[in-house]
Amino acid sequence: MAELAAISPAPPGTIGDELHALASELFPITRSVAGPGLRETLEILELTAGPMQRHRFATGDRVFDWTVPHEWVLRDAWIKDPAGRTVVTLGDSNLHVVSHSVPVHERLSLTELQPHLHSLPDQPDAIPYRTSYYEKAWGFCLSQRQRNALVPGEYEVLIDAELAAGHLELGEITIPGRTSQEVLLTTYCCHPSMANNELSGPVVVAALARMLRNRQNRPRLTYRLLFAPETIGAVAYLSRFGERLRERLVAGYVVTCVGSQAELTYKRSRLGDTLADRAAEHVLRHSTWPHRVIDFYPPCSDERQYCSPGFNLPVGSLMRGSYDEWPEYHTSLDDLSYVTPETLAESFAAYRRIVEALEADETLVVTVPYCEPQLGRRGLYPTTGGAWHVQQDRQRLEDMMFLLNYCDGEHDLLAAADRCGRPVWELRPVADQLVAAELLRLERH
Amino acid sequence: MAELAAISPAPPGTIGDELHALASELFPITRSVAGPGLRETLEILELTAGPMQRHRFATGDRVFDWTVPHEWVLRDAWIKDPAGRTVVTLGDSNLHVVSHSVPVHERLSLTELQPHLHSLPDQPDAIPYRTSYYEKAWGFCLSQRQRNALVPGEYEVLIDAELAAGHLELGEITIPGRTSQEVLLTTYCCHPSMANNELSGPVVVAALARMLRNRQNRPRLTYRLLFAPETIGAVAYLSRFGERLRERLVAGYVVTCVGSQAELTYKRSRLGDTLADRAAEHVLRHSTWPHRVIDFYPPCSDERQYCSPGFNLPVGSLMRGSYDEWPEYHTSLDDLSYVTPETLAESFAAYRRIVEALEADETLVVTVPYCEPQLGRRGLYPTTGGAWHVQQDRQRLEDMMFLLNYCDGEHDLLAAADRCGRPVWELRPVADQLVAAELLRLERH
Amino acid sequence: MAELAAISPAPPGTIGDELHALASELFPITRSVAGPGLRETLEILELTAGPMQRHRFATGDRVFDWTVPHEWVLRDAWIKDPAGRTVVTLGDSNLHVVSHSVPVHERLSLTELQPHLHSLPDQPDAIPYRTSYYEKAWGFCLSQRQRNALVPGEYEVLIDAELAAGHLELGEITIPGRTSQEVLLTTYCCHPSMANNELSGPVVVAALARMLRNRQNRPRLTYRLLFAPETIGAVAYLSRFGERLRERLVAGYVVTCVGSQAELTYKRSRLGDTLADRAAEHVLRHSTWPHRVIDFYPPCSDERQYCSPGFNLPVGSLMRGSYDEWPEYHTSLDDLSYVTPETLAESFAAYRRIVEALEADETLVVTVPYCEPQLGRRGLYPTTGGAWHVQQDRQRLEDMMFLLNYCDGEHDLLAAADRCGRPVWELRPVADQLVAAELLRLERH
Repeated sequence: MAELAAISPAPPGTIGDELHALASELFPITRSVAGPGLRETLEILELTAGPMQRHRFATGDRVFDWTVPHEWVLRDAWIKDPAGRTVVTLGDSNLHVVSHSVPVHERLSLTELQPHLHSLPDQPDAIPYRTSYYEKAWGFCLSQRQRNALVPGEYEVLIDAELAAGHLELGEITIPGRTSQEVLLTTYCCHPSMANNELSGPVVVAALARMLRNRQNRPRLTYRLLFAPETIGAVAYLSRFGERLRERLVAGYVVTCVGSQAELTYKRSRLGDTLADRAAEHVLRHSTWPHRVIDFYPPCSDERQYCSPGFNLPVGSLMRGSYDEWPEYHTSLDDLSYVTPETLAESFAAYRRIVEALEADETLVVTVPYCEPQLGRRGLYPTTGGAWHVQQDRQRLEDMMFLLNYCDGEHDLLAAADRCGRPVWELRPVADQLVAAELLRLERH
Repeated sequence: MAELAAISPAPPGTIGDELHALASELFPITRSVAGPGLRETLEILELTAGPMQRHRFATGDRVFDWTVPHEWVLRDAWIKDPAGRTVVTLGDSNLHVVSHSVPVHERLSLTELQPHLHSLPDQPDAIPYRTSYYEKAWGFCLSQRQRNALVPGEYEVLIDAELAAGHLELGEITIPGRTSQEVLLTTYCCHPSMANNELSGPVVVAALARMLRNRQNRPRLTYRLLFAPETIGAVAYLSRFGERLRERLVAGYVVTCVGSQAELTYKRSRLGDTLADRAAEHVLRHSTWPHRVIDFYPPCSDERQYCSPGFNLPVGSLMRGSYDEWPEYHTSLDDLSYVTPETLAESFAAYRRIVEALEADETLVVTVPYCEPQLGRRGLYPTTGGAWHVQQDRQRLEDMMFLLNYCDGEHDLLAAADRCGRPVWELRPVADQLVAAELLRLERH
Repeated sequence: MAELAAISPAPPGTIGDELHALASELFPITRSVAGPGLRETLEILELTAGPMQRHRFATGDRVFDWTVPHEWVLRDAWIKDPAGRTVVTLGDSNLHVVSHSVPVHERLSLTELQPHLHSLPDQPDAIPYRTSYYEKAWGFCLSQRQRNALVPGEYEVLIDAELAAGHLELGEITIPGRTSQEVLLTTYCCHPSMANNELSGPVVVAALARMLRNRQNRPRLTYRLLFAPETIGAVAYLSRFGERLRERLVAGYVVTCVGSQAELTYKRSRLGDTLADRAAEHVLRHSTWPHRVIDFYPPCSDERQYCSPGFNLPVGSLMRGSYDEWPEYHTSLDDLSYVTPETLAESFAAYRRIVEALEADETLVVTVPYCEPQLGRRGLYPTTGGAWHVQQDRQRLEDMMFLLNYCDGEHDLLAAADRCGRPVWELRPVADQLVAAELLRLERH
């Protein structure tokens, strides 16, 4: 694993500042589901996350019900008004061009131009984000205010773009664990200049990858961190690795929209009570962060693919708010001021704690199942009895009693922790003491 | 099915007015569990509901633990006081005579008469309703006020009645469906002049029968609409058809007490989570009608037979209030002013919607279970993406995503609708679009 | 069963006064887990409870993970200060000596003495209760106020005690029932002068034993009433009789801390829904006593042994408050004024009612499962029908209908009672009427 040495340690300053700076660096790139913008994004993320394995799917390949689209290169785009003034230009915002627009250079009347324009009457200052991956078309997005200012006459439009056969490209980092059980942390990298949806996701996952690579010991579980275009990326990944996930995945999360100031929102997997759900809800329950838990529903992001009925994988999503609750979604208002270092840091901390909970969660089994073991002669209990309720380390003693009772082979450590209302990361050291005393042992499967 | 042409279409005016008028027509008839009053009632109901198949059970026949009683004909009845004045007469109310009284014509003192009199001290103006189907006895019911006015002396009483061997008679309408799965809508027709309990039930079921007969297409499910005397009628029906119900019944309802102004009250089946329960609760949840849902309990009406432990059928009851909550129950105060056209219409509408929900409730299965299907190339999704949350037909798109996810073979359409919090009658047209696009197909059993 | 005649009937006066007087008699005895104090205690309890079978376990014997400790005899103990004044003496309180202290007689400085002293800084007037059963050590407990008054200098300490091989001794009363199913009522008798924890437990169990012995008829279930030292007693008992309990025990309760004025608190068994739990919660639900129900957790008392994962028996505990909620716990403040005749009587009544519920709880099965039986011809229903909701014995009729519906072989009588919200001790006489009418019969296993 020489590659693990390649990544840099966390820079000085807070993790929140670092993640916000990384999002700022990625912000101007003209990303799309396939093409140079996506590749450049992955390369920048690798500087934080470490080298990624690339999975390529050729244009035109069938992945389940879908077809891999062309790569898209956008070099220039503008609209000139009847007076020859540039009224819309790619230089101002890469949201101005409908993603995957076919090339065009022609003159046409305002009336002919209108069907190619997209704006939001209710948000007159926002440029909407629109795509046309699977339909050959071109278009411009602009603010309603810009649109209202257009006068009748002949316009000149240019989209200097290319749609060419190539590859859909996914970046994956694998952190091998001591067991073959897998955890998936997936995010998407196909949106151009928008900060909460989506750059918050990739930067947090990059930081998680670095954290996992920098662990001193091999983790218990195998972690897969996936950077892929939304929808088609998840579909393509599942078409190649879905069977492996069905065999090995114990918990997965779609990491997206984690930079805004909305409350932490855990959306359950379709199954609803998988290890992914138990770990995320456990972390939130034992945190002081404002949060809520909501049930699975299909609209939103890639959980729709992972939780399609044929796969029905243990994949949830810890996000901030829900995509349909914030009006800045899919517009130019989702800019770098919409995400904060503080919320990025908090979201990172929440996912890190989920990883801790997953790592702690072994199934340990008590070796003395009939009556409690005598803790005193093992030096685990005060030799002078009776002082239980004024005992200084009473919490540790209570934890032991809980563990010796609930580690029965039917509760994993997370379930035992939930039975006694304690965070698993505080129970785990006590469990380790009991393992050392040979009162608990790892369950053999 | 020539017979289906025989019934008349709904008359002009509101359904509520029509049902109230029908109840008024039936009100004066002296009904009992067996005899001409019941037959006359069924014949009048047939003018609205269409022809009924009659099931006959001979007097003395054993049906489970019960014996079919005699037919009862009542021609005249009165009490004359010591001065020869008629103080109680059948002409005033057919509740005055205990149902199935044996004939009597004799003179007796007030003291001897008292044990044959029934009144309600707490409701001094109400004539109670009393029966003696299985015990040879006679009696008069009168208001407490009438009773208090009786002076000592010799009275003359006459009950010109006949108890004769004959038949218990049940009327049943069958609307054959495309499948053999059955729905039962049962009501009772044995009470004399009382409006909420019971005429509201028969008139609503008659209207439901007409509605089902007038459908353009054969329904999915087979409907059985049963008009029977209470208790003994249900027992007799189950003794002959219970096995068929056990094989085919998917939902049943005891339709009774649906005309008062009390809130809609759904009483669950004994099993509690059958299709009958899911459909009724779904309808109420997606309505604006005040309502409540209560668990099964044996006292009340024929659900006690259908839900006896040996049968334990999926039979609930949507009523208004519960029998033990209104003091007019089983008295002359339950008259035509106690039921309103508006509440009859609302109850009819609720049952009609239950039928709609049952009809809509097929089990459809997604044909693309691995990842979502690409809706765009089927013309089911806007070709320009990204506008999801400002999409005009977003509800339809969300419904599609829900259906493509939850139509997994384990959820029927009602269960899928409950997962997404949507009324099944709004989801069904979207499901039909997906069936047309071959993305959903009917589950083959 | 000649022995049953040996015990005396309840004395005049209230049961609460009697139990408080018995606790007062037991209070001064210097009890420990093994030794003469325990034996004397059992002998006094036998005067109320009747003769006990003694189970003996020899010092040094292994019981599961534990070793049976020595017997302890304490004859005298004191501390004399530098001026020769007795500042602590056993005569004042038997809590002054750490239980199972080894003998000592020596002179030592205050500094050398301090590690052997136990006090409670936060409760300056309370003498704590401390033990050292399994570690050879000696110590004195005293109030913080006493300790603060100690001046530097040479002290003389005496503990005239003996730790000798002998036996751990348990007292058990068995009341044989008509079936081999067993109920366990267990309490502990090892604490010296403390009233709520623990004398309240033994005195209530003694009264329950007398009540069971004095029954006219053999009970349905076999009752075992166990008086044992805490922890080691339960471990020892389970080592010898655990297999029998696993086969036969249907409900068990740890009877402890039942004399204080805290609310009745039922702590569920680890399984949570056993007959023990259903009966206790049923009793509390149908009582007017303030109460609460809490889930199992391992710390507390002997339920930790009975509910260890290997046994996982149906054992809960009805107590008053929880051990960690009252500061008097394990101190000299838990004296005879801390328990009241009223609460002892109420706790006894609650357990007596649990016994009634268990006795009533047979599984009866309806003999007419298809439709309801005709009650009228069996004289169980008024022959004049229709008066249901003004019926004087309507409760009895409703109870019959409930029983005839829910006694389906899947609900025992307690479950049927819970379905209809009625106390089982009121339903049982109605069930007996139905058994007499051959409408219910005892399930054959």
